[in-house]
Amino acid sequence: MDKQQPLSERVADDIQEMIISQKYLVGERLANEFELAEELKVGRNTIREAIKLLASKNIVEIRRGKGTFVSERPGLIDDPLGLSFLSNQAFLSADLLEVRQIIEPAIAKLAARNRTSENIDDMLASCLAVEEAIALGKNHTEEDMLFHTAIAKGTQNQVIPNLIPIIHSSISAFIEETNNVLKQETITTHREILAAIKSGSEEQAEEAMKEHLRINAELIKAK
Amino acid sequence: MDKQQPLSERVADDIQEMIISQKYLVGERLANEFELAEELKVGRNTIREAIKLLASKNIVEIRRGKGTFVSERPGLIDDPLGLSFLSNQAFLSADLLEVRQIIEPAIAKLAARNRTSENIDDMLASCLAVEEAIALGKNHTEEDMLFHTAIAKGTQNQVIPNLIPIIHSSISAFIEETNNVLKQETITTHREILAAIKSGSEEQAEEAMKEHLRINAELIKAK
Repeated sequence: MDKQQPLSERVADDIQEMIISQKYLVGERLANEFELAEELKVGRNTIREAIKLLASKNIVEIRRGKGTFVSERPGLIDDPLGLSFLSNQAFLSADLLEVRQIIEPAIAKLAARNRTSENIDDMLASCLAVEEAIALGKNHTEEDMLFHTAIAKGTQNQVIPNLIPIIHSSISAFIEETNNVLKQETITTHREILAAIKSGSEEQAEEAMKEHLRINAELIKAK
Repeated sequence: MDKQQPLSERVADDIQEMIISQKYLVGERLANEFELAEELKVGRNTIREAIKLLASKNIVEIRRGKGTFVSERPGLIDDPLGLSFLSNQAFLSADLLEVRQIIEPAIAKLAARNRTSENIDDMLASCLAVEEAIALGKNHTEEDMLFHTAIAKGTQNQVIPNLIPIIHSSISAFIEETNNVLKQETITTHREILAAIKSGSEEQAEEAMKEHLRINAELIKAK
């Protein structure tokens, strides 16, 4: 135990440990302040401070009047790589796209190998959600990210789906803009990726994803 | 402005904005509580709470008796993917290695293309640090991660170096263990990767990294 560590941080670690050990499951409500204070033998103010620390890391979620709940994706915060602090924001969208070009074709290939029929259903649903947003003239950045996440889940690798929101980071306004220019190309290439993954054609899935990202890359260069 | 958001969080956002806009640079000391309270027109308790929130996200670092400083890698937290919360910890090391096998050969290839002579110096220094740790019979997990980060910096991509600590996550004790069995293989394959990157041989750098990770993968399977 680190004696320099403030009490609220130590208590936050204790509560985090309860979540890791699955005493509380994802989405579940924690015991209230009074009960936690009793159990951990500290004051309610310390519990309140500890809960705030956990909320700032998206480990728990405080819902006013309802209590404190374990987050749906505990520990996964906005901008976990600190991209908003990088000095060269102008190159950030090109750098993120380069990372996507490295990772996502390999993900599509792996998904073609390992996807379940449930994964295919999810991919189709999010593919349709993108198309619907486009048809309604809405920004489809979020739906697009969910489509790529559905593919990532098809790999059956636990880490890969958590990487997608990071590399699709829309901190750069430029990326959102780009996504929304490529309407017809997005629909066509998404469909090609999905068909290849569904049929289990690994190389084809990889190539379709490469093509999808190549179109994005050209648009960035053209700017 | 979100009216539901507590004052301390709003003030934390304001201070974060000062850092993003480079009013305070990486490693720099913030104005003291009293000055910040004055500038942001809030009480010192609110400033103190806001600073704690920023510290929990590794945006600032509180050094006792010295003040509050902007972190060296602001916003980059331990375990940003929430891997310690994943339910299947047994497969985590295999899943992380699969991600490394996707990303790192491509990184080595890109580094062979884009590295500067300064990058090569850094790679050599961290390669030697791994070898020294091995010679002294010490755990070399940290040095190993720094070698792979030095390679990632050779890509000149701002995002890639931030991904390395995540995918080298040693949350799983198993990974540390694995790393420390492969002593001679680590030395030999690190040297091969470095030589290929230095000579600018892209395909060779990619292959050497694949081989390096293939040996790790076999060991995991053998367990």
